[in-house]
Amino acid sequence: MTSVGNTSAANLPPGDVRVDIDRLVARIEALAEIGAVEGPDGARGCARLALTDADRDARDLVVGWMTDLGLDIEVDAVGNVFGTCRGSQPELAVVMTGSHIDTVRTGGRFDGNLGVLAGLEVIETLITNDITPARSITVAFFTDEEGARFAPDMLGSLVYVGGMPLEQALDVEAVDDHQRLGDELLRIGYAGTLPCPGASFPHRFVELHIEQGPILEDEAIEIGVVEGVQGISWTQLVISGQSAHAGTTPMRLRHDPGYVAAEIVGFVRRLAGELGGDQVATVGRIELDPNLVNVIPRSATITLDVRNTDEPTLQVAERRIADEVARVAAAEGVRVESTTLARFEPVNFDPAMIDLVEQTASTLGYSTRRMSSGAGHDAQMLARVCPTSMIFVPSANGLSHNLAEFTAPADLERGANVLLHVILALARQNESA
Amino acid sequence: MTSVGNTSAANLPPGDVRVDIDRLVARIEALAEIGAVEGPDGARGCARLALTDADRDARDLVVGWMTDLGLDIEVDAVGNVFGTCRGSQPELAVVMTGSHIDTVRTGGRFDGNLGVLAGLEVIETLITNDITPARSITVAFFTDEEGARFAPDMLGSLVYVGGMPLEQALDVEAVDDHQRLGDELLRIGYAGTLPCPGASFPHRFVELHIEQGPILEDEAIEIGVVEGVQGISWTQLVISGQSAHAGTTPMRLRHDPGYVAAEIVGFVRRLAGELGGDQVATVGRIELDPNLVNVIPRSATITLDVRNTDEPTLQVAERRIADEVARVAAAEGVRVESTTLARFEPVNFDPAMIDLVEQTASTLGYSTRRMSSGAGHDAQMLARVCPTSMIFVPSANGLSHNLAEFTAPADLERGANVLLHVILALARQNESA
Repeated sequence: MTSVGNTSAANLPPGDVRVDIDRLVARIEALAEIGAVEGPDGARGCARLALTDADRDARDLVVGWMTDLGLDIEVDAVGNVFGTCRGSQPELAVVMTGSHIDTVRTGGRFDGNLGVLAGLEVIETLITNDITPARSITVAFFTDEEGARFAPDMLGSLVYVGGMPLEQALDVEAVDDHQRLGDELLRIGYAGTLPCPGASFPHRFVELHIEQGPILEDEAIEIGVVEGVQGISWTQLVISGQSAHAGTTPMRLRHDPGYVAAEIVGFVRRLAGELGGDQVATVGRIELDPNLVNVIPRSATITLDVRNTDEPTLQVAERRIADEVARVAAAEGVRVESTTLARFEPVNFDPAMIDLVEQTASTLGYSTRRMSSGAGHDAQMLARVCPTSMIFVPSANGLSHNLAEFTAPADLERGANVLLHVILALARQNESA
Repeated sequence: MTSVGNTSAANLPPGDVRVDIDRLVARIEALAEIGAVEGPDGARGCARLALTDADRDARDLVVGWMTDLGLDIEVDAVGNVFGTCRGSQPELAVVMTGSHIDTVRTGGRFDGNLGVLAGLEVIETLITNDITPARSITVAFFTDEEGARFAPDMLGSLVYVGGMPLEQALDVEAVDDHQRLGDELLRIGYAGTLPCPGASFPHRFVELHIEQGPILEDEAIEIGVVEGVQGISWTQLVISGQSAHAGTTPMRLRHDPGYVAAEIVGFVRRLAGELGGDQVATVGRIELDPNLVNVIPRSATITLDVRNTDEPTLQVAERRIADEVARVAAAEGVRVESTTLARFEPVNFDPAMIDLVEQTASTLGYSTRRMSSGAGHDAQMLARVCPTSMIFVPSANGLSHNLAEFTAPADLERGANVLLHVILALARQNESA
């Protein structure tokens, strides 16, 4: 007997199978202890930059849970970790879910971690309910998704899908301590033997993530059905001028890179407002050298983070910023060295996968809204090699990359249940018996 | 026999007494080896922040030279060091010269150091020529003139003249590592026993310094006769906003302290241009937290350095900056905490001392120009307790607080010879025999 392939969750009765939210929350809390940072007003977030000791400890904890669940564990050459629960037809391509467990320096407990731990929760739910679908299910966590220590962001998944040569990735230097990524992988014991990029790719990929923005909460929607991801442009500008005494150098003789940096910050803000729509633009990093009260700086380093769902508009923003940088630098008599740290075009997810997420959530009785992601995610890399989509759950006050990042257990539960039934539907595709 | 008091250099034949420029340059070079920093294009400057190990080593070197010259050495409770060459009438108040030997993080070899080492050279010249004037001559170096590690600048001389309570000074924390000034003095062995402020003050004070600006070089003038010092206003602003994800937070919902900091930097520049004249204004320090490419910062800390020779105009500048800070902070929805790090009114030096410097330089055949100092100097503190003036020599390209700071030996020599004959004239005032 052969069952019908391409079944969708919408016409599958979800029955009584549901995740155990207490178990999921317990894992989230345990993982959040590693690199925990106390914030104001009782906020408790994480500082777990990629490939630091804290990241190693977090990896060890998650790998331990994978081992407890009996998963086959593999680590690839860029440190991506895959835990696979074998299906009844392991010759079929796997269904993959996952995300990342590194955080920014003042990150929350949910960003990335939710997608990985909800993947484990889905597998534990299936095991507990004695459900073995045809396809194997893999839970992955990818190296350095945040890019807070090694640029670009989403580095691990980018290399996994063949978007950056492995050797180039291993040679990336940390922005803070200039350690080499490959050396840090070796140091923490996560330079794996699995080839990267992979020899074969998943059947489908789906990622559960917090929204990291205010839209779902504002509109009281339970599940965000993610249609795609904004294009991202990251640029570093090193502005070099003339260091001099702040008291004795007449204004007209100055070549002040700090002033130029400030003018660029102001311009970028005004430009984002002018372009409107989904356009966002941020200067999150400014460093002056020597950074002293009474010295005109010798150099200023700033980063630009510019995003839009529309590629042509994103290109307009990049061009206008570059023109303004050249103009203000020439007026002040400073030099500017511009480096592209990351550049990803907007990504559109697979229509059938988007439909599957939407129908599954609806079948479960949850309110939904289609939306694009303002943040980059590993899913946008996986979308290059297999049909992919994402599930969003609300972020309290829209906060993320913030110690106070929070998503209520009921929202986590809804997201994990959608993930469960999407994975179950996918893992039964092309099933034979 | 009683000689005539109140003699001036102008009517004293300088005779053949001149400093030994090679000896002076050798001391400058030896001192510059401590904390030496290599810059681009072969520049070689100093990083010798106050009360660091490098500052201790420099102090030890200068105190060693003072000892070699047979000076009486005293260290006061804030670490100011005084080396005194006894005159024939030691009951008379001393003539004091000196400056500082701490530097900014990317400082030069001449700023401060010249004034101290030229003082030693004057004494060695007098000893070599067997000249013993009536008054004792003291060469001083004052603690933390730069203020680059402990605010305010000119801290040591400020405490010496009674402008800040000793205990308050000892409790100042370093801006970088938060060490307490009193603890650092103990650590490097320069917490002296001489009471501070002093029980008595000098008869006169004169300080030789590099101009640290471009005016003398531009006008091909050999000696700057300093009439006074610009007023200085240092303010720290800590701007607190809402950290959030750079990709998912719409522009209209942002409370970005980095943007507010940038707007203030731009305003300060435009204001200085508008006020014109001697007005200068600098933002030398900007720090974002967490300072990551994809995170809207939680806070921004900046410093404002605003100076003018005219006190009412300086107050206008301060008021207009405060108004603008309030305006832009309110518009962005951020909080600002403003702290005055230092505030000194413009200082006018003693007319008779200014005349003495000018006449001495002219008698020696050097071209002169009256000018005000754009930088703060220990002399402006000493001016509170005794008639004071300063001698400037040119700075190549107007550079200071810069590794490439340079003054040619011929300029150093002229400055030291003016210092020699000014001190000699002062040390003979009220002489009796």
